[in-house]
Amino acid sequence: MSATPDRRRFMLSSIAAAGAAASLASGRISAAPLGSVQREVPADPSKVQGTPLADESYGLRSQFETEVRVRYNTKTPESSWTFTPLATSCGTITPSGLHFERSHGGTATIDPSTHSLYVHGMVKQAKKFSMKDVRRFPAMSRIMFIECSGNGLTEWSKPTMKTVQGTHGLTSTSDWTGVALSTILNEVGVRPGAKWLLAEGDDAAAMTRSIPIEKALKDCFLAYGQNGEAIRPEQGYPLRLMVPGYEGNMHIKWLRRIELSDMPFMTREETSKYTDILPSGKARQFSFEMEAKSVITSPSGDMVLDGPGFHEIAGIAWSGRGTIKRVDVSVDGGKSWRAAALQGPVLPFCHTRFRLPWRWDGKAAVLQSRCVDDTGYVQPTLGQLIAVRGLNGPLGSIYHLNAIQSWHVANDGKVSNVHHY
Amino acid sequence: MSATPDRRRFMLSSIAAAGAAASLASGRISAAPLGSVQREVPADPSKVQGTPLADESYGLRSQFETEVRVRYNTKTPESSWTFTPLATSCGTITPSGLHFERSHGGTATIDPSTHSLYVHGMVKQAKKFSMKDVRRFPAMSRIMFIECSGNGLTEWSKPTMKTVQGTHGLTSTSDWTGVALSTILNEVGVRPGAKWLLAEGDDAAAMTRSIPIEKALKDCFLAYGQNGEAIRPEQGYPLRLMVPGYEGNMHIKWLRRIELSDMPFMTREETSKYTDILPSGKARQFSFEMEAKSVITSPSGDMVLDGPGFHEIAGIAWSGRGTIKRVDVSVDGGKSWRAAALQGPVLPFCHTRFRLPWRWDGKAAVLQSRCVDDTGYVQPTLGQLIAVRGLNGPLGSIYHLNAIQSWHVANDGKVSNVHHY
Repeated sequence: MSATPDRRRFMLSSIAAAGAAASLASGRISAAPLGSVQREVPADPSKVQGTPLADESYGLRSQFETEVRVRYNTKTPESSWTFTPLATSCGTITPSGLHFERSHGGTATIDPSTHSLYVHGMVKQAKKFSMKDVRRFPAMSRIMFIECSGNGLTEWSKPTMKTVQGTHGLTSTSDWTGVALSTILNEVGVRPGAKWLLAEGDDAAAMTRSIPIEKALKDCFLAYGQNGEAIRPEQGYPLRLMVPGYEGNMHIKWLRRIELSDMPFMTREETSKYTDILPSGKARQFSFEMEAKSVITSPSGDMVLDGPGFHEIAGIAWSGRGTIKRVDVSVDGGKSWRAAALQGPVLPFCHTRFRLPWRWDGKAAVLQSRCVDDTGYVQPTLGQLIAVRGLNGPLGSIYHLNAIQSWHVANDGKVSNVHHY
Repeated sequence: MSATPDRRRFMLSSIAAAGAAASLASGRISAAPLGSVQREVPADPSKVQGTPLADESYGLRSQFETEVRVRYNTKTPESSWTFTPLATSCGTITPSGLHFERSHGGTATIDPSTHSLYVHGMVKQAKKFSMKDVRRFPAMSRIMFIECSGNGLTEWSKPTMKTVQGTHGLTSTSDWTGVALSTILNEVGVRPGAKWLLAEGDDAAAMTRSIPIEKALKDCFLAYGQNGEAIRPEQGYPLRLMVPGYEGNMHIKWLRRIELSDMPFMTREETSKYTDILPSGKARQFSFEMEAKSVITSPSGDMVLDGPGFHEIAGIAWSGRGTIKRVDVSVDGGKSWRAAALQGPVLPFCHTRFRLPWRWDGKAAVLQSRCVDDTGYVQPTLGQLIAVRGLNGPLGSIYHLNAIQSWHVANDGKVSNVHHY
């Protein structure tokens, strides 16, 4: 089957749609053709009556789908985390059932009819808001990621996790709905001199973090909705503080209390934890923003390519500083780079999917992605990051690992997690 | 508590964020204040250990959440439909478990490892594609709505459904992922003269529709992903034809076969069904596009406002012709209109949420919304629509009811479904 002018025309138009005409213009999508030639129309469709529609339903996924969040083997299952299975993810939204979890005292069970938010401290009038009160205020929605600052913490010194679920699965994106924190602060009145606020969760850990008041007034919000319905229990039902672009633990779940002050509160989770020990021995505190990061999700660790030919390289990129502007992909360990196509709409503080067609020649390769955000920040190599941050913790620097990830493709098609400088 | 300059400043900034400064600048958000004054910090957070994180999990919603799709009382539960509960919806995405259903032979159960798509007819080479083949092609994602053309079919002659779930719940939005149909057609080669294609489902109804080849090549795609995971069974798992902006029944579920031809196939579902009988007695066929439509989801039928004061009016608008440009809201049955704020990102072929602050004076009111899309099309009143389409079917004109919806608010706060000319 040669490419006639007609076929070539359609081929080019579809490849252009995939945003990467040059690389495939020389031939068919697949070296080994996809699809088998068949001359007969298949038998009549199923004569089997389908499952009746239920009178009332809340649908579940197919019995043939088995992806799960997998828990990291922490000392206790209450202070623990589970990873989103990024290898099979698609599009922008993370299914709510597969959104990563990170909790310090297990998942709190809260009846929204009795839950309230208390706002006090340097305010003109301390107030308690029921969930009904909170839902009466003007609403807003935002599609945005949350990433745990510990995402990748096992990967500083050597590659340890086999899959992208383990190396990068502590980030997820949802369509969040709630009320602007500025609206709530209006209602209580911010007293002059208030510079910080404490957000406190209603969980067994009483998780607390300090948030600068400028950030609170700029774009923080209190989410009661996630992907079109109530926020999920493990995400903070019925109310979670959203802090766009900042590290995940600041997005206080099961939010019960906000206190305003003229200084940060120096809680456990911003002094003994969630700080970054530098080569000098000093600790960097309040490293709020999640810097730009990307990862190839397919092909990725533990996959096996079923032979040379066409493979789409796909992944996600995100930045806590704003919007992804560019993702480059290398298939030769960083010697050369090509620009990947970005799936629109490209939104700030949001997973942005990138794709690049690749014709694998069957030889060993090292796949990498490198993103740039709209501040001009370029995702660093692991070597560059370690030069600044050092490897001073028990696991390296623990938090804020946003280096370029390398996947090694062996000549038998096996993909594995490697460090490649 | 008077509005001091400080408080006023914050108040205005948050209201501006809600996109509707003018209407509320005169005072507090709530006439009856939200939140109760409290002087003591509440007791220490829960000492109850939370639920441990499971080793492997696929999360479920809170035990306190009870929204369901409700089935319409059709003769059989296999050819039937269920409605998305729009009244409690938020943001852009519809939860997959609450995406409306419309099936003609129940929900097919299909093992993706044995499913295939056969493409034949006026092609250069008929081919069969396994799901593995389909997933190897370059992928694309699109956040878009699907609306059943029968959405609202009970509402032509008189208001019959109590809630917005019943009047408008046959539309939902998901983040869909799959492969461009043009890519598949490249692989088989479109023969000159091919003008239409037949899409056939693998369900007991063997649901079939004809699609113009121009549309197929322009923006149709075959979805295997929905909201970041595999498409749900009732949405066509493992593969569904997506036809952006066209009536829902053309989005063939459980897609098994595509046949190319030089003319439409005149299937049952485009001759005896899914046509519109006009006042002349002639039937309008191939009324593909879902015209611009909007509805206020809150307050909406069967709700009760808990007193005068601030209430946010919120709803969704969408157009099968493109992008929503404007939504106006009336609280006096169409005598006067105000522009609502649109929640960004405003995407083509996508539910667009609108919001408008409203201070209810406690007197009877009629709430309406009216949208305009980027073709300049203005959502009609019911009177305008009936003047063109007539009321010739057993339920009126059955399909493609996109008129302005009216909700009556009684002086006791009860909201009900009315026809208001």
